[in-house]
Amino acid sequence: MSIHSLDPVFHPRSVAVVGVSSNPNSTGMGSFYASLLESGFAERGGLYPVNPKVDEINGVPCFPTLMDTPDPVDHVISQVPARFVPELVDQCIAKKVRSIHFFTAGFSETGDQDMAVVEQQMIEKLRLAGIRAIGPNCMGLYVPSSKLAFMGGFPMESGNVFLLSQSGANAGEVVRDLTNRGVRFSKVVSYGNGADLRAHDFLDYAAQDEESKVVAAYIEGVQDGRKFFEALQRCARVKPVIVLKGGRTQSGSQAAHSHTGSLAGSIEVFDAVCRQTGALRAETMDELQDLIVAVSTNVRQVNGRGVALFAGGGGGFAVLSADAIDREGLTVPRMPQSAVDQMREYVPVAGSSVNNPIDAFPPSEYLDEMLRLIATAEGMDMVFMSPMIDRSRWQQPNSPDKDDSKDGENTRETVVNEIARQMKRLQDDTGTPVIGVIRGGGMARMMGIDSDDFLVSTYRQGIGSFSSVSRAARTVTQLLQWRENRQGLPDLS
Amino acid sequence: MSIHSLDPVFHPRSVAVVGVSSNPNSTGMGSFYASLLESGFAERGGLYPVNPKVDEINGVPCFPTLMDTPDPVDHVISQVPARFVPELVDQCIAKKVRSIHFFTAGFSETGDQDMAVVEQQMIEKLRLAGIRAIGPNCMGLYVPSSKLAFMGGFPMESGNVFLLSQSGANAGEVVRDLTNRGVRFSKVVSYGNGADLRAHDFLDYAAQDEESKVVAAYIEGVQDGRKFFEALQRCARVKPVIVLKGGRTQSGSQAAHSHTGSLAGSIEVFDAVCRQTGALRAETMDELQDLIVAVSTNVRQVNGRGVALFAGGGGGFAVLSADAIDREGLTVPRMPQSAVDQMREYVPVAGSSVNNPIDAFPPSEYLDEMLRLIATAEGMDMVFMSPMIDRSRWQQPNSPDKDDSKDGENTRETVVNEIARQMKRLQDDTGTPVIGVIRGGGMARMMGIDSDDFLVSTYRQGIGSFSSVSRAARTVTQLLQWRENRQGLPDLS
Repeated sequence: MSIHSLDPVFHPRSVAVVGVSSNPNSTGMGSFYASLLESGFAERGGLYPVNPKVDEINGVPCFPTLMDTPDPVDHVISQVPARFVPELVDQCIAKKVRSIHFFTAGFSETGDQDMAVVEQQMIEKLRLAGIRAIGPNCMGLYVPSSKLAFMGGFPMESGNVFLLSQSGANAGEVVRDLTNRGVRFSKVVSYGNGADLRAHDFLDYAAQDEESKVVAAYIEGVQDGRKFFEALQRCARVKPVIVLKGGRTQSGSQAAHSHTGSLAGSIEVFDAVCRQTGALRAETMDELQDLIVAVSTNVRQVNGRGVALFAGGGGGFAVLSADAIDREGLTVPRMPQSAVDQMREYVPVAGSSVNNPIDAFPPSEYLDEMLRLIATAEGMDMVFMSPMIDRSRWQQPNSPDKDDSKDGENTRETVVNEIARQMKRLQDDTGTPVIGVIRGGGMARMMGIDSDDFLVSTYRQGIGSFSSVSRAARTVTQLLQWRENRQGLPDLS
Repeated sequence: MSIHSLDPVFHPRSVAVVGVSSNPNSTGMGSFYASLLESGFAERGGLYPVNPKVDEINGVPCFPTLMDTPDPVDHVISQVPARFVPELVDQCIAKKVRSIHFFTAGFSETGDQDMAVVEQQMIEKLRLAGIRAIGPNCMGLYVPSSKLAFMGGFPMESGNVFLLSQSGANAGEVVRDLTNRGVRFSKVVSYGNGADLRAHDFLDYAAQDEESKVVAAYIEGVQDGRKFFEALQRCARVKPVIVLKGGRTQSGSQAAHSHTGSLAGSIEVFDAVCRQTGALRAETMDELQDLIVAVSTNVRQVNGRGVALFAGGGGGFAVLSADAIDREGLTVPRMPQSAVDQMREYVPVAGSSVNNPIDAFPPSEYLDEMLRLIATAEGMDMVFMSPMIDRSRWQQPNSPDKDDSKDGENTRETVVNEIARQMKRLQDDTGTPVIGVIRGGGMARMMGIDSDDFLVSTYRQGIGSFSSVSRAARTVTQLLQWRENRQGLPDLS
């Protein structure tokens, strides 16, 4: 295996945070030093706070300038104001650092021509010295295997999703929200204005990175159209790539210009590029997240439009869910009469429906049989399973009905794990993909189920779950469309 | 004020629960007795459990039959299996009850012709005796002023929203979810198959009910088209009425038939009826809830499509939000240059945008000034305000940064209340409606803001808030469309 030229950027052994704030407990945007304390990078050694105005942080001495730090410094995080950047660039060259991440904003994205020139000059200088730059105007790197993080609360467990994002807050949102769904990341990079390293560089890196099985991108503007197209094409040949383009509309493209100095270009061209290269296109943040879950799970195996909907939330929920499935481009085929007749042997007629959607609570000893019947019935290409309100199925009669104690929580987690295992078993036994749907808010609470727990438990079983029926259906439709677009390209499923 | 003939149905002084379960602690669907214990109805006296197989529940004696209960019984909740219903009907007539709610299912909705006949016969019998029936196959009544509730956890504070729903679980979902947004209800009725009392009866009642200012309906099928049209027309003349039709699609309409025996009819006709009568049409459960919030708050005052977006969640969030606003039919007008220049006097250039959308954190002493400038700038018909990540604005420097203690929660609640008051002040000072947007999940937690708290705090100030920019924008677009449809009808705004 060859070593990619960007490998050192993702795996620095030492980091200097220049312009560090004196309060290491402050969290949120720009709290790089605090995040690297929390991530465990500091414990490994090789974390150097730099600020001439600060003597020490939590007892750790602060270096007045980069030049005063011990050798070597692989990676520099710049938090200094823009006017100090030229001096810092000179010091980075003198110090022979390998890469620099400019959190510092105030360059080309301001629309100020002078600052755009400064940005260009500093990148030129760094390039001549062989130093790669991330940014300016961005959050930089989250790499669990290197113990790098740019916000607090990011898990230090590595995963298989590579995310590149011009926006740091959007990257943070994807990481936080998907972490709550069980997803883990290989590398995340927020690259802002992309003055040096850009989308095509990161796509090329992601394509060959063995740790990364799925690639996702939030992009506001593409600087080198041809290079981007080619890199996307190379990457999408070998891995699922999902692209969310910010600034699709007129209003959004103006906002993107103010944000990262991006010129949006034609959205039609961008969409055509996604189609031609075999990438998946997301239109919203929700879609981006849902598609990442989908390509990481059994949703990739769905091979048709027929949904068997096991709707454990009452008849009205079943009706609206069937509407949502239809609206999003899938179908809810009628259950064959033979299957209906078999189910009626153990499902009482009153208050239940065994047509599709299924809204029925059989005696628990018949549940597995009923689920297998549903999953193998003619026309059912997948099962959507929404956990049932019928708590007696999942709770022992003598377990507490309402219990906020630790024991109660354990019980609830066990319930969710049991449901997830049942879904996996059903899929293994029948070969039909089983997809989870969990409603948030009051309904999940009423069922005694924490929706985050459900999302995580099912994800760990390789089962894709979604927070509404319409999101699940839309995601499946997008994957089916994707497969169609990819005809002629290598099969990734 | 005349007394409507259905008033006694909504205000029974005594209730018998027939076929009561022996476990009063069981919650969830069908736990009517437990719900009436929790709601406080039992404390008032006049709650009678009936079941020949149960001696006592929690020390309260259980009556073997309805005939054994003390006189008078105003309202009967039937939990007995369908085969016992004819006998119960006879007892209700002998006992001279006023109304009966059949939770009991297994009638016309099963598709069984014999059971459909039984349903018709029992309703005929009750009608002759002057007894009104709710259902069968439904959850019945939630009326805070009468201390009636059909599920646990419903608030006993009265509000101004009247909800009629064929589905009990959907009614429960609306109550639970909107309660978490600050909304309160006057009366809620789940009426299932609608064998006796139907949509038009409840619409007529809601139209004249002084407690009810907003009317919402979940309907799967309309039994008397003409009567429904006329009742909807009468009601929508005097109050905002929002209708969600379950079974809009082919799949959904099949499901509706299995659920409540409803025949869907043409959705085009239904939509035309909404338009002609001046009702609001919701397509999903989310839309129904958002529209209820909208017509109860300042969202009704919006009078144009221009959004000033104050996006406190980073530049990428601003970009995607602008895209969402555009996609949903509103606009994000460019900020006039004069306003930009004024803001630049106190907003630093780096890392901020003062065009629209606004992604900027001015020094706190300038925040009010900046917000007023935004709200009064040319072309801005409303402000969308998303709470800022900049916590220093809302937290005292010496307050705990991460604190899960009770004190910490109080601080967070104070923060949210302060933001809500600031939004109200901004609206009062400028005359421009200010609408709240709060992101759930990881981002809200990062901001130290509980999204439910934000929704409730703003609602209490008369400010409509939504869980995403796209939901806010779509809702405003629907209200603008509604106003257009209502030309020639009485002005409700």
